[in-house]
This record gives sequence, C-alpha cells and structure tokens, in this order.
Amino acid sequence: MTDKFGRVSIIGVGLIGGSIALAMRRLKLANEIIGLGRRIENLKQAKKLKIIDAWSLKPKEAVRNAELIILATPMRAMPELVKSIAQDFKPGAILTDVGSTKLKMIEKILPLLDEKVDFVPAHPIAGREKTGAKYADAELFKNRWTIITPTQRSSKKGVLRIKRLWLALGAKVEVMSPKDHDEILAYISHLPHIVAYGLVSAIWNKEQALPVLRFSAGGFKDFIRIAGSSPEMWRDICLENKDMIINALNQYQNQLEELKKMMVKEDGKGLEKVFSKSRQVKEKVEKQDG
Amino acid sequence: MTDKFGRVSIIGVGLIGGSIALAMRRLKLANEIIGLGRRIENLKQAKKLKIIDAWSLKPKEAVRNAELIILATPMRAMPELVKSIAQDFKPGAILTDVGSTKLKMIEKILPLLDEKVDFVPAHPIAGREKTGAKYADAELFKNRWTIITPTQRSSKKGVLRIKRLWLALGAKVEVMSPKDHDEILAYISHLPHIVAYGLVSAIWNKEQALPVLRFSAGGFKDFIRIAGSSPEMWRDICLENKDMIINALNQYQNQLEELKKMMVKEDGKGLEKVFSKSRQVKEKVEKQDG
Repeated sequence: MTDKFGRVSIIGVGLIGGSIALAMRRLKLANEIIGLGRRIENLKQAKKLKIIDAWSLKPKEAVRNAELIILATPMRAMPELVKSIAQDFKPGAILTDVGSTKLKMIEKILPLLDEKVDFVPAHPIAGREKTGAKYADAELFKNRWTIITPTQRSSKKGVLRIKRLWLALGAKVEVMSPKDHDEILAYISHLPHIVAYGLVSAIWNKEQALPVLRFSAGGFKDFIRIAGSSPEMWRDICLENKDMIINALNQYQNQLEELKKMMVKEDGKGLEKVFSKSRQVKEKVEKQDG
Repeated sequence: MTDKFGRVSIIGVGLIGGSIALAMRRLKLANEIIGLGRRIENLKQAKKLKIIDAWSLKPKEAVRNAELIILATPMRAMPELVKSIAQDFKPGAILTDVGSTKLKMIEKILPLLDEKVDFVPAHPIAGREKTGAKYADAELFKNRWTIITPTQRSSKKGVLRIKRLWLALGAKVEVMSPKDHDEILAYISHLPHIVAYGLVSAIWNKEQALPVLRFSAGGFKDFIRIAGSSPEMWRDICLENKDMIINALNQYQNQLEELKKMMVKEDGKGLEKVFSKSRQVKEKVEKQDG
C-alpha cells in the first residue's frame, strides 16, 4: 500500500535525489516535484529529462507548501540549509534525507526544527560512483536496503509514510536507531572505502619507484573503482561518522596484524583457517542474496 | 607468428591448466595434450569435455616424450613434483609453469634440473574464484597479462616460444626478472587479497555482536568475492612471497595510519586530497585500459 504526496521538494538533484524524483514521477507518487539546487545547468537538465516538474534556486520557495521535503545534498551542507528554511515548512510537513551517516546530522538538525515538522531520516544504501542528475535511474533503489532511523521528532505516521515510499520505490526497508545505523555502515560501507583508499594510496606511492599499475587486474580493479568515489562525499562521511569508523578501523588493523604475524611465522595452517572462514562468509552472503 | 608443439603435458588440469589445454587444442598448437593429475574424476571430465586428449595419474608417464611440460598444480607442490620427473624430461623439452609467485619457486626448482631442460617460468594473471577443469575457458587469457620470468636455465629460443604461445592464447606478454614480478604482484594482487581477507575477518568478528552482513552492498560485495578465493592457493602465495607481501603490507599500514590520523584531527582537507588522488589513479587506470 502506498500513499501519494502533494508537493514534494527535493533539495539536491544529484544521482540519489534525481533517482527518487524520477521514480516518484513514474509511479505517480507526487502531485508536483520541485527540484532545488545550486547549479542551474543541472536543474535545467533535470527538468528536460522529466526528472522534476519545476526547479528553483531559492530554498524557501521550493519548500513552501511542500508536504514532503527530501534533503539530498552533501551531508555537511544539510544543517546550514535546514536552518535557512526551518521557518518555511508547512505544518505537518515531513522532512527526510538520504545521508550516509545519521547520528551527528540528527544532532545538528533536531534543535533547528519546531514541533510542526515531522523529521524522519532515511538512508538508501544505493550509491554509485557516478554523480549528477543525468545518471538518475528510477530502478536505483530496487532490492537495495533503505534504513529509516526515527528521531524524537518522528511521528508514527511519518515513519509509516516514509517506509511506504521506499517500499514503493522497490527498496527493502529496515527501521533502526541512528547509532546502530552508523555502526553497521561503518563496517560494511565506510571501512571498505577507507581500506580501498589506503590501498590505492600505497600502490600509487609504489608506482613512483616501480610501475605496477599497468598490470592491475581482477580484484584490484574493484578497489580502484571503489576508491574512485566522490572525494567530497567521503570526506564528509569520515568526519560525520569519525568515531564509529575509527573503531572499525582499529578492529581491522588488528586483523591485519594477525595476518602479518602468521606470515612472519610462516603459519600456513593459521592463514588457511582465516582464508577458509572468509570463504564461508562469502557463501553465507551469496545464500542470503539468493 | 606461432609455432606448434608436439606432445604437451599439463600437470594439474584445473581452471588454469584446463584453460590452456582447451585454448591450445582449439588453436591446434599441439599434436597431443596429456593431462596429469591426482583426481581421476576431474581428469575423466576434462577428457570428456575435450579439454585434453588423454590423461594419466603417473607423472613420469605423462612427461615422457613431451616437448612442453606445463606445471599448473598448486605452487607448493611444484618442487616435489619436478623432483619426481626431472630424470624423464626429453632433451630440449621446455618446462614452464603458471605459478603466482616466482623467486622461491625458481630457487627450489633450478637445482633439480639438468642442462637438457629449458626452464621458462610464466605467470598468466588471470585468476578467477572458480576452481576445476569444468570451468576451463579458452578465452580466459585474452587481453590479460602473462609475465614471463626467464632464469639462468632459459634459452632465448625457449623464451620466444613461450612468449609466442601466450600471445597466441590472446595474452599481453611482458618479460621481466622474477624479483620484479614478485614485487609487482605483491602490490597489485597479493596485498589486495590480504586487505580483503582482513576486512572480511573484522566484519565477521563484528557480526557476532551486531548483525551487519545482511546489509552488505556495493563495494563490500567485491571484497567478499575477492576473499572467497581458494584458501590453499592464497596460503601458498603468502608463504612463497612472504617478504614482498610483508613489505607491501607495511607500506599499506602506514597509509591507513595516515588516514586515521586525519580522521582523528578532523583534517577534512587532508582526507579530500588523498581521496582526490585516488580518483585520479582510477581515471589513469581506466584510460590505460581504453
């Protein structure tokens, strides 16, 4: 069961914001979708591609009379932006977002909102290395997780409507605390990115002495692809979810030390045991994904 | 220009050995291909799939009268195996291999060979997570690198013939020292695998306290796939190329420490600089691959 929204404002019409707009339009989930952004060319293109119905450069204008406001800008820009529009929300409007980390962002935004706003943060785990409205894809969220992290300013009804919206977009939805979200994401998304960035950096340093990159193959190319993600976005994630990421990184560094010790001691059995366990994890994940 | 071999013995008819056999048969590069292995079922299947012409469980038998002997067993098994057949090589026969590391393997095998054998080690960088003859693919080496690492027991003609063989199989070929090979592979293949194994281990440990694996997405799934590679093969690689891998791992750990320091200090500019550099590396590699 889905329900329809009146006016929807999408602030930041990039890959994610654009894909939400496109999917909502196709599914007729909104009477009108207004795109808000800073780059006029991107907004014009989004309108031309029928991703949005109209656009504006003025946050206040775009938010006025909106029943649903979706923050899809870089995360660090969100609090400043909310501050500038907090007075313009229609009573009962739902404010949601698509940010990759939750705790700090919620801490900053909550004090800016008055009681008339229903604030229901969400995070669709559906990144790609591409950015910009022109890559918008109505199927982007299909069979991917979207995690909803209610706050003290979320009504039951608001959570339900946001949940139904994401289900309508094809996502698998889970509701959890902002803290659990940030910890889970630190492990399965943020740490892997740090690991890939570290690897590409180490190899780039080596490249100066011995050309290694031209032989890159198989698995390493996946790392390179991961480490090609948006530098600004990943800077923000590292700063916003710093504590959780550092914890996860410490655990990871311990594992590396264990593996190094085994190599130094030529402990073949120990290495094989760790590698076999990893293969089991792979099989488990493949099974869960069908 | 390619030239044809008389009898070819492939010792170890797994993914790599089987794929070489299949490609050589299709291209008519051998009069006869004998497969040698320990598992009779695998050999029977390889014959049935027309990957090999005949098979044997006896190394000596399979090597007799062979013009080309290809070692495609797990690496750590190679020296013992060569010891058992060293007396049976036909004068002028070429012995080659497909092992993922070179220095130690060559050190162990060279003293076992007499002057009548032309020993030309090679390494096709074309792994997959699958193992076994049934996954043999004649196109496996197409547009992938094969690195040839001549030894003091390699004739110019032998190197040329092995080079032509790999070019015929569609590979890009580079000739370099065993040491350079092992150092390059430590960075672009072995280190990425260790990094992935460490990550999957850290996440598996976390999983016991907080279920994170069910949310695995995007980039992390690539890590899981990499860490699902053959435990025996990767144990061998870690032991055989220990010193080079530990050096590369140390460099990598330094990079991680740098990134962690930047996060602790909330040095957004520093993080963004590293991430931007990574994106440039990605663009460089994409460009080189066309």
